[in-house]
Amino acid sequence: MFVRFALNADLHFSRELPPEAVEAVAKTVQEANTTLFRRGVPAEATEEQIGKITRWSADGSVVSLKIESGPYTRAHDALFRFRRSIVRAMGRHRLGLRDIRITAFRVLLPDELPDAAIPKVPFITTVHRLPGAVELELDCSASDLENRVPDRIVRLIEEKKEALSYGGKVEHWELVFESGAKPRVYSGNPTEEMLARGWIRHGASRGQWIYAPQAVQLFRALEKIVIDEIVTPLGFSEMIFPKLVPWEVWMRSGHAKGVYPEIYYVCTPKTRDPAYWEEIADYFKVTGKVPVEQIRERLDGPIGGMCYAQCPPFWPFVQGETLANDSLPVLVFDRSGTSHRYESGGIHGIERVDEFHRIEILWLGTAEQTIETADRLHEAYVRVFEDLLDLEWRSAKVTPWFMAQEGMVGGSGSAEVGTRDYEAYLPYSDSWLEFQNVSVNGNKYPKGFNVKIQSGADCWSGCSGIGLERWTAAFLAQKGFDLSKWPEAVARLVGEPKEVFRFL
Amino acid sequence: MFVRFALNADLHFSRELPPEAVEAVAKTVQEANTTLFRRGVPAEATEEQIGKITRWSADGSVVSLKIESGPYTRAHDALFRFRRSIVRAMGRHRLGLRDIRITAFRVLLPDELPDAAIPKVPFITTVHRLPGAVELELDCSASDLENRVPDRIVRLIEEKKEALSYGGKVEHWELVFESGAKPRVYSGNPTEEMLARGWIRHGASRGQWIYAPQAVQLFRALEKIVIDEIVTPLGFSEMIFPKLVPWEVWMRSGHAKGVYPEIYYVCTPKTRDPAYWEEIADYFKVTGKVPVEQIRERLDGPIGGMCYAQCPPFWPFVQGETLANDSLPVLVFDRSGTSHRYESGGIHGIERVDEFHRIEILWLGTAEQTIETADRLHEAYVRVFEDLLDLEWRSAKVTPWFMAQEGMVGGSGSAEVGTRDYEAYLPYSDSWLEFQNVSVNGNKYPKGFNVKIQSGADCWSGCSGIGLERWTAAFLAQKGFDLSKWPEAVARLVGEPKEVFRFL
Repeated sequence: MFVRFALNADLHFSRELPPEAVEAVAKTVQEANTTLFRRGVPAEATEEQIGKITRWSADGSVVSLKIESGPYTRAHDALFRFRRSIVRAMGRHRLGLRDIRITAFRVLLPDELPDAAIPKVPFITTVHRLPGAVELELDCSASDLENRVPDRIVRLIEEKKEALSYGGKVEHWELVFESGAKPRVYSGNPTEEMLARGWIRHGASRGQWIYAPQAVQLFRALEKIVIDEIVTPLGFSEMIFPKLVPWEVWMRSGHAKGVYPEIYYVCTPKTRDPAYWEEIADYFKVTGKVPVEQIRERLDGPIGGMCYAQCPPFWPFVQGETLANDSLPVLVFDRSGTSHRYESGGIHGIERVDEFHRIEILWLGTAEQTIETADRLHEAYVRVFEDLLDLEWRSAKVTPWFMAQEGMVGGSGSAEVGTRDYEAYLPYSDSWLEFQNVSVNGNKYPKGFNVKIQSGADCWSGCSGIGLERWTAAFLAQKGFDLSKWPEAVARLVGEPKEVFRFL
Repeated sequence: MFVRFALNADLHFSRELPPEAVEAVAKTVQEANTTLFRRGVPAEATEEQIGKITRWSADGSVVSLKIESGPYTRAHDALFRFRRSIVRAMGRHRLGLRDIRITAFRVLLPDELPDAAIPKVPFITTVHRLPGAVELELDCSASDLENRVPDRIVRLIEEKKEALSYGGKVEHWELVFESGAKPRVYSGNPTEEMLARGWIRHGASRGQWIYAPQAVQLFRALEKIVIDEIVTPLGFSEMIFPKLVPWEVWMRSGHAKGVYPEIYYVCTPKTRDPAYWEEIADYFKVTGKVPVEQIRERLDGPIGGMCYAQCPPFWPFVQGETLANDSLPVLVFDRSGTSHRYESGGIHGIERVDEFHRIEILWLGTAEQTIETADRLHEAYVRVFEDLLDLEWRSAKVTPWFMAQEGMVGGSGSAEVGTRDYEAYLPYSDSWLEFQNVSVNGNKYPKGFNVKIQSGADCWSGCSGIGLERWTAAFLAQKGFDLSKWPEAVARLVGEPKEVFRFL
């Protein structure tokens, strides 16, 4: 059993076909079925798996076709191959092709699919359930077919079927390193104690904190450790990546496949003419209230969203380029701004926030260079967590973050491509907190942004996100607030906490 | 001539008024007109300037009033004062007030106003033009009146009239310092040369750059000068301010009065239930296109916008607090992320961008402390621009930034409150670039966010925004790209530009 495609199409020509043109159509159809549609098809393919024009007629200026196929030279591919030949053949009779209208398109899937595996997209007009199969009727224009909409629908259905078969199963998680237990010196909730000490206060938006100098001292100390002990010794250079991410980037990075529930979306004014906005400003001045619905009507977009994964907006820097062999691996990082995720509601500590600060490390090169860089980074992290921060932590191979963000589950299907999570033990809640990760993303981004290597080797990339809130949460949960008991390297960098604010 | 208010209101009671209650109404009206409405009114006020119940009647369970006033005990204020007395008086007759319905509200402004001075707000239903005056009919509920809608309309009209009288006049600008000419060593456009050298590339969104290591080296060198030479010696401590700004903050900071044309607005998902978003993801997977209109329907908000002025989202940290005398002045700064402004279109260099990086310095204390801090900051800037960066620059007193952002023009009306712009000369365009500013904002923010000082002194604040893109643009425009000719302090901090990327 295999997937089958069938389409009916009308080819509209510039005038009525004379008898000799109709004969030429017959010959072109014959050639297509015997030669053209067989190009590139493996020898073992059976007759019925290959695209074929199974019926045709000419009436006035219109040539009507029925094309059927299995998986090889699919009906729609066959149509466009045929278009080239027929245009040439009819040209000799001074006939021009004016339009192609698809009058029917059917896909037969050899599987009794669950309803949830069939996407709710406007193209699917009817679903017929047959014994052992499902037939879909599609409403597609010729340009939808050129855009490979039927193939994408078939692939999406396969993805959904696979995701459903995982059902409620948890994500992949496989322990690869464990530091072992460390002495317990503190068992409080660090967010609560930071609040009580005036190190942080809630910001005005959800999941958002304002950090007082004492908290920032610790943040910057941890950041300095990252810069001095990890990033600089390994040869990474600082860049500045943009923080507003338009669709164009997420379409190429793959985030447009599924990140929608967690995005803070960004919309732009329809115009920056002050007169257009005067009524809005006047309404506020007169009522003290912001007229949200009226503002909404004056916005375009959303054009994209606030920074979510930090590395995608880097990629336009190298988009369409070929990297010189001797410039590789390229090693860079960014720490220039905030990331934002619409997290589930409720009150959480600084370890789970909507707005956070991350140092994003990114590298690209050959597969070997990319994997080697990830390994060297891992070694540097081990040294920092063991020798400098003295943390109780572990690391595990997990479902790659980009698959999770695209709504997929399971492993990457490759031993080398994947995400390694770093987790720290939180004594106060007897749980483990993912506080950073290292990912080898394979050729995902270079492919999406069309980046090549001079040698012709496949270009790979990797990234590692260090969440400063999460490092802080992990560190304080284990080490507490008595600075005399902190690891010396951290205590020295932090210095005496500055008490800048005093309230009555 | 003075502004006049007149309203008709029906007071609905819980049952029909018995004759003795009607007598009590008469007595309460009499007392209100002779005593209650006169409280707090200056002795020189004339009879017709003071609120008065000029007609009343009782019919069944309804008491109807007509109240007229000039500027003292305005008709709507009189109504609510009267409500308190009448509720007490009727309570004695077991009558409860159920509802107040405003059946008419008129404002007479003693001025032939231009049309553009009359706001387009839903409350104004009719505008009558009379000789030497304009009468507005308002449709206001009792709660609109309690929210002082008529007063705010009158104030807004005065503001608009004043703004119109400024007409096309330029903003206030008054030179206060000039460095004098410096030797000219470069006349190129720094953005073009940075592009050509691969120091920057366009980001995917408008007015947005991706900065390569060479550019970041200069950014960080300038940042280090700010930290080591200005911020640290003057005793400022680093904080982290949020970068997503909800309306709540801009309502208090005053930005909600007029910043709308330039905001990048932020909207949130109606839910983070993946099932709700599945169709959107499927549509992208099937077409390769993001269905913007369908996403729009699934969003709430806008809830506010991306960081615009950087200091407003600090203020919830101190909102509602009283600051201890001996903690003042409080001196802090933030450099934790990007600011975003929807600038006018077209191609601009890094000196005029939609997404930029700023070090925001903020201080609060008494008026004296706030002014003194601004002066010390100015002295530090002079030293840095003269001795370290060797810039050709000037500074000028200008329309306060917060007035400009609220759509106002002219001066602040105070010698000490105001904004000082710092401008650098750009040889390539023979123009001056505003590259930073220092503002004394008076009690604007402490008032908006209800911050007090222990001693009872008025709390003031100031802020200074250092735009790193603009420092960079000013520096490179004057000093060029031959590092051997750069001021030694900068050249040493920047080091050799790192050529990380090499493209074929």
